[in-house]
Amino acid sequence: MGKDRLAAFSDGVIAIIITIMVLELKVPHGAGWNALAGVFPNFTSYVLSFIYLAIYWNNHHHLLHTVARVSGLILWANSFLLFCLSLVPVATAWMGENPLAPVPTAVYGAVLLMPAIAYYLLQKAIVRKQGAHSLLASALGADIKGKISPVLYAAAVVLAFVSPWLSILIYVLVAVMWLIPDRRIENALRES
Amino acid sequence: MGKDRLAAFSDGVIAIIITIMVLELKVPHGAGWNALAGVFPNFTSYVLSFIYLAIYWNNHHHLLHTVARVSGLILWANSFLLFCLSLVPVATAWMGENPLAPVPTAVYGAVLLMPAIAYYLLQKAIVRKQGAHSLLASALGADIKGKISPVLYAAAVVLAFVSPWLSILIYVLVAVMWLIPDRRIENALRES
Amino acid sequence: MGKDRLAAFSDGVIAIIITIMVLELKVPHGAGWNALAGVFPNFTSYVLSFIYLAIYWNNHHHLLHTVARVSGLILWANSFLLFCLSLVPVATAWMGENPLAPVPTAVYGAVLLMPAIAYYLLQKAIVRKQGAHSLLASALGADIKGKISPVLYAAAVVLAFVSPWLSILIYVLVAVMWLIPDRRIENALRES
Amino acid sequence: MGKDRLAAFSDGVIAIIITIMVLELKVPHGAGWNALAGVFPNFTSYVLSFIYLAIYWNNHHHLLHTVARVSGLILWANSFLLFCLSLVPVATAWMGENPLAPVPTAVYGAVLLMPAIAYYLLQKAIVRKQGAHSLLASALGADIKGKISPVLYAAAVVLAFVSPWLSILIYVLVAVMWLIPDRRIENALRES
Repeated sequence: MGKDRLAAFSDGVIAIIITIMVLELKVPHGAGWNALAGVFPNFTSYVLSFIYLAIYWNNHHHLLHTVARVSGLILWANSFLLFCLSLVPVATAWMGENPLAPVPTAVYGAVLLMPAIAYYLLQKAIVRKQGAHSLLASALGADIKGKISPVLYAAAVVLAFVSPWLSILIYVLVAVMWLIPDRRIENALRES
Repeated sequence: MGKDRLAAFSDGVIAIIITIMVLELKVPHGAGWNALAGVFPNFTSYVLSFIYLAIYWNNHHHLLHTVARVSGLILWANSFLLFCLSLVPVATAWMGENPLAPVPTAVYGAVLLMPAIAYYLLQKAIVRKQGAHSLLASALGADIKGKISPVLYAAAVVLAFVSPWLSILIYVLVAVMWLIPDRRIENALRES
Repeated sequence: MGKDRLAAFSDGVIAIIITIMVLELKVPHGAGWNALAGVFPNFTSYVLSFIYLAIYWNNHHHLLHTVARVSGLILWANSFLLFCLSLVPVATAWMGENPLAPVPTAVYGAVLLMPAIAYYLLQKAIVRKQGAHSLLASALGADIKGKISPVLYAAAVVLAFVSPWLSILIYVLVAVMWLIPDRRIENALRES
Repeated sequence: MGKDRLAAFSDGVIAIIITIMVLELKVPHGAGWNALAGVFPNFTSYVLSFIYLAIYWNNHHHLLHTVARVSGLILWANSFLLFCLSLVPVATAWMGENPLAPVPTAVYGAVLLMPAIAYYLLQKAIVRKQGAHSLLASALGADIKGKISPVLYAAAVVLAFVSPWLSILIYVLVAVMWLIPDRRIENALRES
C-alpha cells in the first residue's frame, strides 16, 4: 500500500470529522439574543475542537511525509488514531451542552488524551519500520511537546473534579503550544 | 507542504459543508402543501447559502492557483477561512427557521462577513509570501468587490434591526455581484 | 480551471449526498419486527434514490470525460446539477415518511425532474464550448433516454394526484431504463 | 473508466460512512456518570462497526489493486457493496439503542452478511473480467475466510433469537479473524 492513498483516506476522514462537528452546533431555540447566548458554550467548545483537529491534520500531514512504505502496523495505528479523533465531536457537544460540569469536562480531556496516545503509537510504528536512525527518529528528538501533552491532558482529567475551569485552561494552553508549527520535521527534511 | 494537498483538503471541507447544509433542510411535518410551504423560508436560505459557498469554492480555487509555496501563515489563514465557512450551515438554518427575525438575519450577515475577512487575510498572507509585485498582487489591483462586500455585509447586519428585508436584499445583491466570474486572476495568469 | 478538479469536487459532493442520505433512514423506534416494518417505506425510497444517484455519478463521470476545457458556463451548469442532486435526500425522506401520499410523491418526481433538466443544460453547455460537431454532440445523437426521462417525470408528478402507485412505477421504470449503461459516449470515444 | 476514479469514489464513500456513523453516537442526556454509562452499548457497537468498516476499506483497497480495467459489471457490483456498507451505521445505532434485543442483533448480522455477499460478487466480477488464471483468482485460492464469514453471519442471525450474546461473540470473532491482514493478494503481487 502506498502512503498516498493512506494520506488521502486520512485527510478525507479528518475533513469529515472537522466538518460534521458543526452539526452538533444546534440551531438556537428562539429568535432573540438570549437564544444566541444559549449556544455560546457549544460555540466555544466547537472553536477549541476545530483548532485541535486542524493541528492534528497539519501534524499528521508532516508525519506521513516521513513514511516511505506503509506496514500493517502503521495502517492499524493510523486507523486507531482516526477512531480516537472521531470521538472528538460527541465529546465536544457533551461538554458544550453541560458547561463546566465535571464529568463532561473530564471526558473531553480523556478524548484528547486518546488521539495523543494513538499519535505516539503511530510515530513508534513509523520509526520501527524505518529504524532508530531514521529521518523521523532524529526529527522527533526528545519530542518534549509530544510527551508533555498526554501528561497535561491526564492532569486536566483529574482536575476537572476540583475545578473544571482549570481543565479548560489546560486544554487551551496545550492547543496554543501546538499552534506554534512543528518545525522539527520540516528542518530535518531540509537538512537531509 | 505542497499546495495540492492544501487545495484537496480545502475542497473536501467545502464540499462537505455545502452538502451537509442540506441536512438542516428538515423534512416537512405532514404530507400536504401546507407542510411544504412551511419549509419555504428554509429552502430559500439554503439556495442563497449554496450560491455563496459555490462562489467561495470557485474563487478559492482560483486564489490557490496563484500560490507557489505554502507558508505557515497561509496554512492558518486558510484554516480560519474554512472555520468561518463552517458556520454558514447553522446560521442558514437559524435564519430559515425564523424568517425575517432581526437577530438571525443580522447573525447571518455576520457569518457572511467573517469568511470575507478571512479571505482578505488569506490574500494578504499569499501576497506577503510572494512580494508586492507578485502575480496575485497585480491580479487583485484595487479589488473593489473584495473591499465593498464586507462593508455591505456590515451595513446589512445593522439594517437587520431596521428592516430584515433590506438586509436580505443586500445578501442577494452581493451574491449576484460575485456570480459574475472573477476574471482578474484568469487574465493575469494568461498575460504572465 | 482544469476538468480534473471539477470532476474531483463533483465526485466528492455526489459521494457525500449519496452517503448522508442514509442519515435520513431513522433508527426504528422499538426493538421488534413492527419497528423494523415501520421503516420499510423509508428503506425502499432510500434504495430507489441510491440507484438514481449512482446512475448520475456514473453518467456524469462519462460526460466530464468528453470535456477538454471548463468554461464559466460549464462550471455553473455543473453547480446547478449538484444543487438539484442535493435535494434528493430530503425529498426521499419526505416520501419515505408519507408513503403513497400524493404531494410528497409528486415532489419527489419534481426533485428527479430538476437534475434531469440540469444535466441537459450541462450537456448543452459542453456542446456549446466544443461546437456542434464535437465528440459529445455526436455521442448524444438523438439522446432518446435524456429526452424521454423529463417527460416521464413530469407525467409522474401529475399522476401522483391520481394514483401515487403509478408515479412510483414510473420512477422505478426510468431507473431501470438508465441502469443499462450508456454506451454511446464509450463507443464514440473508442471510434475517435 | 479508470480504476483510479472508482477507487477514489469508493474511498470517499467509505470514509464518509465510517465518519457519519459517529453522528449516531448520541450526546448523553445529563452531565453525570450515569448519562455516560447509558451510551456505553452505543459506544461498543460503534467500536465494532468502525473495525468492520476499516477492514472493508483495507481489503477493498487491496482488491482494486488487482483490477486492470473496470467493466460495467464491476462498477455495479462495487456500487452494491457501497450500498450494503451504507446500511451499517443505522443497524449499529439500532443495536446500540436496544442492547441484546433479538431483532436488532439479528438485523445487525444480516447487515454484515450483505456486504460480505457483495464483496464476493465483486471478486467474481473482477475474476470474470480477468479470466480464471488471473492474479486475483490465484491470490484468492480457496478463500477460506471469505467463505466462512457469511456462514458465521447467517448462523449469528439465527442464534440471536436464542442468545444475542452468542451472536455478538460471533461478530467479534469474525472481526478478529479479519483483523489479521490478508497477505494473499500482497504475496501474489510480490511473486508476479
